[in-house]
Amino acid sequence: MTSSRSYTIAVLPGDGIGLEVMPPALRCLEAAAKRFGFNLEFRHFPWASCTYYHEHATMLPKDWKKDLQACDAIFFGAVGDPATVPDHISLWGSLLLFRREFDQYINLRPCRLMPGVTSPLANREGKPIDFITVRENTEGEYSSIGGRIFEGTDRETVIQNTVFTRIGVDRVVRYAFELARSRPAKRLTSATKSNGISITMPYWDERVEAIAKEYPDVKVEKYHIDILCAHFVQRPHTFDVVVGSNLFGDILSDLGPACTGTIGIAPSANLNPTAKRDDPNQEWLPSLFEPVHGSAPDIAGKGIANPVGMIWAGQMMLEHLGEKEAASAMLLAIENVLKEAKNAHDRGESNILTPDMHGNGTTEELGGEIEMEIGR
Amino acid sequence: MTSSRSYTIAVLPGDGIGLEVMPPALRCLEAAAKRFGFNLEFRHFPWASCTYYHEHATMLPKDWKKDLQACDAIFFGAVGDPATVPDHISLWGSLLLFRREFDQYINLRPCRLMPGVTSPLANREGKPIDFITVRENTEGEYSSIGGRIFEGTDRETVIQNTVFTRIGVDRVVRYAFELARSRPAKRLTSATKSNGISITMPYWDERVEAIAKEYPDVKVEKYHIDILCAHFVQRPHTFDVVVGSNLFGDILSDLGPACTGTIGIAPSANLNPTAKRDDPNQEWLPSLFEPVHGSAPDIAGKGIANPVGMIWAGQMMLEHLGEKEAASAMLLAIENVLKEAKNAHDRGESNILTPDMHGNGTTEELGGEIEMEIGR
Ligand SMILES: CC(C)[C@H](C(=O)O)[C@@H](O)C(=O)O
Ligand SMILES: CC(C)[C@H](C(=O)O)[C@@H](O)C(=O)O
Repeated sequence: MTSSRSYTIAVLPGDGIGLEVMPPALRCLEAAAKRFGFNLEFRHFPWASCTYYHEHATMLPKDWKKDLQACDAIFFGAVGDPATVPDHISLWGSLLLFRREFDQYINLRPCRLMPGVTSPLANREGKPIDFITVRENTEGEYSSIGGRIFEGTDRETVIQNTVFTRIGVDRVVRYAFELARSRPAKRLTSATKSNGISITMPYWDERVEAIAKEYPDVKVEKYHIDILCAHFVQRPHTFDVVVGSNLFGDILSDLGPACTGTIGIAPSANLNPTAKRDDPNQEWLPSLFEPVHGSAPDIAGKGIANPVGMIWAGQMMLEHLGEKEAASAMLLAIENVLKEAKNAHDRGESNILTPDMHGNGTTEELGGEIEMEIGR
Repeated sequence: MTSSRSYTIAVLPGDGIGLEVMPPALRCLEAAAKRFGFNLEFRHFPWASCTYYHEHATMLPKDWKKDLQACDAIFFGAVGDPATVPDHISLWGSLLLFRREFDQYINLRPCRLMPGVTSPLANREGKPIDFITVRENTEGEYSSIGGRIFEGTDRETVIQNTVFTRIGVDRVVRYAFELARSRPAKRLTSATKSNGISITMPYWDERVEAIAKEYPDVKVEKYHIDILCAHFVQRPHTFDVVVGSNLFGDILSDLGPACTGTIGIAPSANLNPTAKRDDPNQEWLPSLFEPVHGSAPDIAGKGIANPVGMIWAGQMMLEHLGEKEAASAMLLAIENVLKEAKNAHDRGESNILTPDMHGNGTTEELGGEIEMEIGR
């Protein structure tokens, strides 16, 4: 089977376990491409990493933007080595910069109790957990404007602005409503804190209420972030689509996966859903796909990092590129392998799950098994 | 036994279930006072409630400050009726106003897996969970400064300032270090998000690091709020003292109790630990004690609200007033009653736990049992 469907992918493994989970994830993507008849061209870049920074005193080469804009999507491992490079250099010099420069204003993170994964929550097994957080990804609490005054004195005062714009809030809220509408449960939960954060958060609530009028078929509820976090623990199975600001989305999309078992398997899609390639009237702004987990210096180099987050991020990338069939097959393969490994575990046999999932497998073993399953 | 130890308590039941949990809590305090030989004078005030607001178009009478400053402590139920009064009136006109006016800069919230309470976390029972959150309670994300520009247009922009002051940060961090030093584990966890919130949060980290030098005996760790929330679910039994900003402390002190079972039992002490009554050189600024839960309009009027949060808040108040023995006895009484009720439940007998704890008792029954146990 030959095909004209072909995609160029920027591959940025980054640091730490990013370097370890990338190869098996690329092999999984290759397997999907082969089976479903499309081509993937991987362009490997060593930059956007602290290793690169140590050699070049900068996270990115001069032409980074051109390099990435020559690709259909960015496949990103994990960046950061806080022991040697400050976060404001490593993160604001790569991941957070990309999100803003490419206006990846939607951060999507599915949260699902996968077969074979044991949730730390009692009495939840059997009950499906399957929701998705939609995080604003460019403004809000991550504005990076503000400063210090009276430094080093008793009057020292430090201010940072949270910035919500009409355009920024409306587009993420509308995206969340559309997503909720497309799902069977049609339920949207909005994270707020308008009772305490009395200027920006009431504005967020107002925009949610205004846009809700366009979606009478979607059930909307709003919760203050404190009690919403509590409800994630108490009733995770009742959520469908959850929308929040940059900070609240960040918190909820780590807490959700913690409630469903392991953060090692959660993926993250940083989307600019309106950008179009080859449209002469707009600049091409590619989307970025990454695992939720970070570079994890504590386990880097041991070969035991969980590759599922990275593979699942690849699955979201194929979905975004329009390869729906291949994306479905990849998700099914992940589920089948996790289920089978769990069964082996329950039979008292050794299994290929990585240690974070209480198995004794390696990154390569678990990744290789999923690759094989995709090819089947 | 007669005594010269006598305390005047401002009693503000507020709204909703605040009105229901207050009477049993006051009877518990009376029982403790009787047994340990001190006097409590309760001054009941109907204001700081939406009921009062509906009649007077204001949350507080003119002399509210004088009335409260004539007391040794404030015992506060819960305020709010979002269906009829906006939060910025009800909350910023009472609770949040008191915190700021009386400079109650420490918000202490113990989080403990109580005997008889079933945690929603699997495999945690048996392992003790016993930590305490120290929340900055006057500044930070709750600054209430900022505003809107270009209203109603596509350029609409809304800004709110997060304000950290040297004085504000240092005093809460130092308080947390002192508290950690006084506890057997001597461990302090600082909540941050300096990788994303790039101006105020690195400042928070800097102050924690600077003050840590004064406490070489305390083990300090810092975690970004996203992963810290995940760790609350994954390993709540490993925390000791957790310190955070106004917002982060708010989130963690709801999430913690969610992990230990029920938010209905968590108490909250809003402290000005340096204020001294009868010191001619300073204004008297009383501290405030409240349950973590809110006015809960959905279950108000049914008589089934859990009174333990309010009673436990009373326990913290006695501790603060210096009645350590009475405070210990109250905590023990709460534990004994919960344990006994759980045993009854496990024997298949009906029990007096309120419905949020899966029992079939009422506010009055559970509160009455604790009152009797205190008197024993
Ligand atoms: C009611 C609300 C403003 C308040 C807060 O956020 O401080 C509450 O959640 C709390 O934790 O006491
Ligand atoms: C690394 C950090 C800045 C980042 C964020 O807060 O956005 C991460 O936690 C995430 O969720 O992608």
